[in-house]
Amino acid sequence: MRELFEPASVAVIGASAERNKVGSIILGNIIESGFLGQLYPINPRYEEVLGLKCYPRVTDVPGPVEMAVVVVPAKFVLQVMEECGQKGVKAAVVISAGFKEVGLDGAKLEKQLGEIAHRYGMRVLGPNCLGLVNTHHHMNATFAQEGPREGNIAISSQSGAICVVILDWAANINIGFSKFISVGNKLDVDEGHLLEYLRNDPKTTVIGMYIEGTDRGREFLRQAELTTKVKPVIALKAGRTSSGAKAASSHTGAMSGSDKVYDAAMKQAGVVRVRNIEEMFDLLQAFSTMPLPHGEGVAIITNAGGLGVMAADACADNGLPLATFEPSTIERLREKLPPAASLYNPIDVVGDADSERYDHAIRTVMDDPNVACVVALLAPTDLVDISSVAGTLTAFAGSSPKPIVTSFVGGKEMAAPIEMLKAAGIPNYPSPDRGVRALAAMVEHRHSMGRPEPQPVPPYPVDRASVEEIVEHVRSEGRLQLSEAEGKGILKAYGIGIPREGIARDLRRAIDLAESIGFPVVMKVESPDIAHKTDVGGVVLNIDSNEELTRSYEVMLSKVKEKLPKARITGVSIQKMVKGREVIVGMVRDDQFGPVITFGLGGIFVEFLKDVTQGIAPLDRDEVERMVRSIKAYPMLTGARGKRPGDIPALVEVILKISQMAMDFPELEELEMNPVMVGDEGAGVTAVDALVTIKEEKK
Amino acid sequence: MRELFEPASVAVIGASAERNKVGSIILGNIIESGFLGQLYPINPRYEEVLGLKCYPRVTDVPGPVEMAVVVVPAKFVLQVMEECGQKGVKAAVVISAGFKEVGLDGAKLEKQLGEIAHRYGMRVLGPNCLGLVNTHHHMNATFAQEGPREGNIAISSQSGAICVVILDWAANINIGFSKFISVGNKLDVDEGHLLEYLRNDPKTTVIGMYIEGTDRGREFLRQAELTTKVKPVIALKAGRTSSGAKAASSHTGAMSGSDKVYDAAMKQAGVVRVRNIEEMFDLLQAFSTMPLPHGEGVAIITNAGGLGVMAADACADNGLPLATFEPSTIERLREKLPPAASLYNPIDVVGDADSERYDHAIRTVMDDPNVACVVALLAPTDLVDISSVAGTLTAFAGSSPKPIVTSFVGGKEMAAPIEMLKAAGIPNYPSPDRGVRALAAMVEHRHSMGRPEPQPVPPYPVDRASVEEIVEHVRSEGRLQLSEAEGKGILKAYGIGIPREGIARDLRRAIDLAESIGFPVVMKVESPDIAHKTDVGGVVLNIDSNEELTRSYEVMLSKVKEKLPKARITGVSIQKMVKGREVIVGMVRDDQFGPVITFGLGGIFVEFLKDVTQGIAPLDRDEVERMVRSIKAYPMLTGARGKRPGDIPALVEVILKISQMAMDFPELEELEMNPVMVGDEGAGVTAVDALVTIKEEKK
Repeated sequence: MRELFEPASVAVIGASAERNKVGSIILGNIIESGFLGQLYPINPRYEEVLGLKCYPRVTDVPGPVEMAVVVVPAKFVLQVMEECGQKGVKAAVVISAGFKEVGLDGAKLEKQLGEIAHRYGMRVLGPNCLGLVNTHHHMNATFAQEGPREGNIAISSQSGAICVVILDWAANINIGFSKFISVGNKLDVDEGHLLEYLRNDPKTTVIGMYIEGTDRGREFLRQAELTTKVKPVIALKAGRTSSGAKAASSHTGAMSGSDKVYDAAMKQAGVVRVRNIEEMFDLLQAFSTMPLPHGEGVAIITNAGGLGVMAADACADNGLPLATFEPSTIERLREKLPPAASLYNPIDVVGDADSERYDHAIRTVMDDPNVACVVALLAPTDLVDISSVAGTLTAFAGSSPKPIVTSFVGGKEMAAPIEMLKAAGIPNYPSPDRGVRALAAMVEHRHSMGRPEPQPVPPYPVDRASVEEIVEHVRSEGRLQLSEAEGKGILKAYGIGIPREGIARDLRRAIDLAESIGFPVVMKVESPDIAHKTDVGGVVLNIDSNEELTRSYEVMLSKVKEKLPKARITGVSIQKMVKGREVIVGMVRDDQFGPVITFGLGGIFVEFLKDVTQGIAPLDRDEVERMVRSIKAYPMLTGARGKRPGDIPALVEVILKISQMAMDFPELEELEMNPVMVGDEGAGVTAVDALVTIKEEKK
Repeated sequence: MRELFEPASVAVIGASAERNKVGSIILGNIIESGFLGQLYPINPRYEEVLGLKCYPRVTDVPGPVEMAVVVVPAKFVLQVMEECGQKGVKAAVVISAGFKEVGLDGAKLEKQLGEIAHRYGMRVLGPNCLGLVNTHHHMNATFAQEGPREGNIAISSQSGAICVVILDWAANINIGFSKFISVGNKLDVDEGHLLEYLRNDPKTTVIGMYIEGTDRGREFLRQAELTTKVKPVIALKAGRTSSGAKAASSHTGAMSGSDKVYDAAMKQAGVVRVRNIEEMFDLLQAFSTMPLPHGEGVAIITNAGGLGVMAADACADNGLPLATFEPSTIERLREKLPPAASLYNPIDVVGDADSERYDHAIRTVMDDPNVACVVALLAPTDLVDISSVAGTLTAFAGSSPKPIVTSFVGGKEMAAPIEMLKAAGIPNYPSPDRGVRALAAMVEHRHSMGRPEPQPVPPYPVDRASVEEIVEHVRSEGRLQLSEAEGKGILKAYGIGIPREGIARDLRRAIDLAESIGFPVVMKVESPDIAHKTDVGGVVLNIDSNEELTRSYEVMLSKVKEKLPKARITGVSIQKMVKGREVIVGMVRDDQFGPVITFGLGGIFVEFLKDVTQGIAPLDRDEVERMVRSIKAYPMLTGARGKRPGDIPALVEVILKISQMAMDFPELEELEMNPVMVGDEGAGVTAVDALVTIKEEKK
């Protein structure tokens, strides 16, 4: 990666002397950005380009070439890359389009490109990208019109057009960048590699990423986890919704993962996720200019009550508390503020406030230990000298011990003062809620930084052989779907509690079984063809006596036969009726992130209430406990409304075991236990149902 | 109200010759705005102000005075108002502060002000307000520096500072106003009056309101319902959250109602609610410049895939479908778009798109019957002539048959083209999601306009006497809380099903009762002191036999006595055990909106899952059906997962009856039926529990 970002020598293959050609713009940008290394235009059609000697092929260059920027048409790229390999080039930025994004032929070409790079050990950025910038290396190797100015933000983007948007936007709001990377089709270098590099880049203090899809989700997650311990990562993941994802995959050929899984993954990795590009900029401005808050209490200072109300609303929306001031703070405020002022949070310095009043209020609350961040609001009342207040605020740029954001709300009168704030590096927002959101993101990141290191859970001793045997048997019968009994066999092998139960082939044996287990019991139909037994009337709960069992047996079987005449019915299972709080624990494999563990409120209405949460396996105990606490129905588990508390520790164990199982057996494709009955404290947890499918065997 | 908005003659009482005094600014603003009527400065200290003859008192003015603007200090306001009354002034705008907003003394003064106005039949705007503007009457009677330009938007604001913010913001984005009203403390004129007036104002096509609290909630609701059938009402309600509400009430003395109730009220009235001031502007821009969409299908046109993805995400977030194009549309697109373009929605006209390509794509999708609105996106790629595309788009201003919004995303390069769009009246947004949100609001308003007229439900024949008797009895005992039996008596009087049940004073009678009702039964403790029986172990479900009843009786009573040793236990109730889907139906009285009906998923975890919805009584059948459909657990009622459908018509009846009860008996303060068991289709609905409290009797 060093050669990609800080090459001593660069060849531009496909450099052109024709104005407005990409091969000309890129070479010009590298020159204009003040690149200090060796620079070689390569093009057999020219002797000289932009005043530099031009070589027919990269192999003709006399000195070494560390990095190549490739802008030739797609059909020539393979040959050019072969020559780069021969020349000993270490990194290539392939700008050229015409690869995976145009269909199958392009994908084939891209694969060949990858093989050549691999053979020669070359890193590849792209293809189909805008290039990259390292401002501190004075290298703008993009074909964007506007080069970024120097700063501490690194950006990576999966869309070239979004790169251009960001550059143009940034030019307008005085934001500077350390690195700027257009990743294109991500044949080789992707967000995972970039995070690893940028984490250790002292010039970068905040990282922003525009992502449409990730092929190496787990690696991204791992790198993001490490990075967010050190510096903030802000991600905009587009293609969040099914219609958006459709546009994303026709765009760059990336498959967008399920959005809920992305959410879980980003949260787990401490990444701050934004929902649109404006929010991305809002956060970058605050992170790149302000220190992190040490806590979360917010002080609001305003010259207009209405704006204070809006900011307070936004604090509540974002889960930020308004700071309660120390009595000494209120005393100090009282000294210099007029009687009409409100000294409590939000502080209303009143419509005619001057810059001294703002200055006094800000410095006073900054000294209050309960205040972690400050929001300064200003409405263009006729009595205020806006520029003078803006001037006061600029004094807090760069040196403020606590983050401060401003919202000078208005338009015409505000334009010049807002420019002052921008130029000084005070993040200003057109409406109070956007500033509060930026502070909330800083608080969120601060929490992420402080989160405990993942503590790998020591593996539970399990009966692997039993699981292997069951999987083997299911495969031998050409099935992918396990019966309930087989599924429970797997749970048993992992020491997960299941109800006392047995299978009966006829009514007589069902009665014997129920008597030996003890009433009340549950009866369920046994069939390899029925996944959702409840839906076809294949489950009867709470059977209390032989008579009831007899009656229910006949009714149930006739119902099931009516609904699914072709299902093979192999008998009924008789289970001890288990009581407790119903939860769901499940596992699916995501294409991008691997095994995803789901936990939530269980029962047959889980799909409507959707009170569930996800985590990417392997999970540690902290993460599982966080998951359990995060559902809305959590009070159900802690014993609300006069109920006894549930056995949460036992529930946590079960989720950890499923996480381990997902890692132990990649052949398990999907698993769902619904309901899992959480008994009272100390009474354990029982999986009443188990639905397991396995992967198709690889041929 | 005519005299307020279109006075033929205006007196400015407290007019001043000193620059920068409010009394000078207002008079100056009225003159500068080109007011054509008679204008009289009033101030005993001057002979002449700003070139106009000045009178000592309003009673000294020779001709009639229809409207007075009062800017004297609070302590002189009463006298001035008295003189206005004597003069026959019909409407007064009281700018002066120092009333309700400063505490009890101010509130007293405000009350006296109200009495004078009432005595003389004067309308009052304010006190403590910025004034008002009627651009079409050439009257800017505010002390804002920047007068609004003429347009079709009416604004009312409860905060003077927010008024100023809006004016300054609008000056920057080329938005014009018909009326601009600062309502201040709303002693007399409030949002309800304004809606009534603005609804019939031909110069106003869209209304925006900034609200902190409403005293006459039901009147606001009624006027809003009528108004949104004719033109859109966009409301920003600040003080949404408990911390925000605290700031609001210290600000103008308004009590903010519960935010959920506001939400329900605004939805019921067809008001579009926005969450911040930026969204307010976003929506005003679209509503004031574009026609309403005839449907909801969105067509997205972009020169950058990434922006298309973002817009598609936003459509899904806002519940707007992407339009599916007709084959003929795709054919027409294919004719003029390059092969690399994507012809399906979002349409990607590719990075080098020129204005002709945009024009062709927009006109083509506008002709597609499946398209109701259009989003045109542009990234500043190096190959696009941004101004030329902007020029093409301006052609759609004013004449477009379908609404079109644009998002030219960027900063520096975009500034000039965006100015072109603004000037022409094309709503442009800095990020695609904001434009999509504006379209979604238009679709939402369109639906509101088309909603059926409220159909008053014919009153159910009920046994009023029984209810009166129960209430009387409870009052005679000095209680506010009804026993369960009393509560059910009220339900019975309204024909709401309750389980067969009886009260037993001892175990022997409990057994007799259970046998006559038939097992299984439910036993509950009877006590006037226990509201939440479940919480203290005072409910045992599913009792199947005499033996079980005997056992449970002893256990229950000892539990309850242990938890609430002081509760008076008058016996136990024995009920038929009712099965069904558990829902909750309740009623509370909101200070601002009156009786609010709650419906949702029932059971003991209702407070955690919060799957509930609200409506303001009286409700009609459509509204109740909408409420029932709107909860997440609705599929539980329609018969999901193999269950039989529930008796939804009977449930709707019960909710309508509670709505009627709330209107019939204002003395009922609160009512909660949880759970209400919804039986299978045709099997009816049974209220298993009833918790009722009555109002304290007025002394």
